[in-house]
Amino acid sequence: MLNYNVSLDFIFHALADPARRIIVERLSQGPASVSELAKPLAMSLPAVVQHLQVLEASGLVRSEKVGRVRTCRIEPAVLSTAEQWISERRTSWEHHLDKLGDYLAEHPDE
Amino acid sequence: MLNYNVSLDFIFHALADPARRIIVERLSQGPASVSELAKPLAMSLPAVVQHLQVLEASGLVRSEKVGRVRTCRIEPAVLSTAEQWISERRTSWEHHLDKLGDYLAEHPDE
Repeated sequence: MLNYNVSLDFIFHALADPARRIIVERLSQGPASVSELAKPLAMSLPAVVQHLQVLEASGLVRSEKVGRVRTCRIEPAVLSTAEQWISERRTSWEHHLDKLGDYLAEHPDE
Repeated sequence: MLNYNVSLDFIFHALADPARRIIVERLSQGPASVSELAKPLAMSLPAVVQHLQVLEASGLVRSEKVGRVRTCRIEPAVLSTAEQWISERRTSWEHHLDKLGDYLAEHPDE
């Protein structure tokens, strides 16, 4: 439970930055090298590497170096962890609305 | 597009804190007063209010004061905005995998 929460801290923190979301967006279309990821971002390569470190710490991205090229790829299971947390809250809210609707239908005068 | 991105910054930042996720979790079961929200949290009321301000700034929570009681409720559309962003990235990744699978099926010797 604790690990689960800690990882959500890191995942949502990683997604809270627009540059990091651009990286995730690019990687959702397939693996890419660090220099490919840097291309659309108006920042230095070290700044891109720092964003990648935040993404790797969250588990959203992993990378491996072959020769001189570091290739990054997305970890879809980690993306799903965040999606599922939100989806469960939304479902819980819809369930609350359903119960409220039932109550109002049974007590039309209130 | 800019507004959309800025709001995702605030939404994901709001969700990156465990106390704020506990608040969202509670509110997904129905509206609650500030003191009800504070009960399960091991922190001062001003600290809870600060977390609520972050949640309100993101649009995830809205509140209204009637008499002496401030009641908070969740904004499900804002929750969906974040869910949709993640879901689109996951779908994009699955589409990439499908294309890769098709390619490999057509080129079995590679």
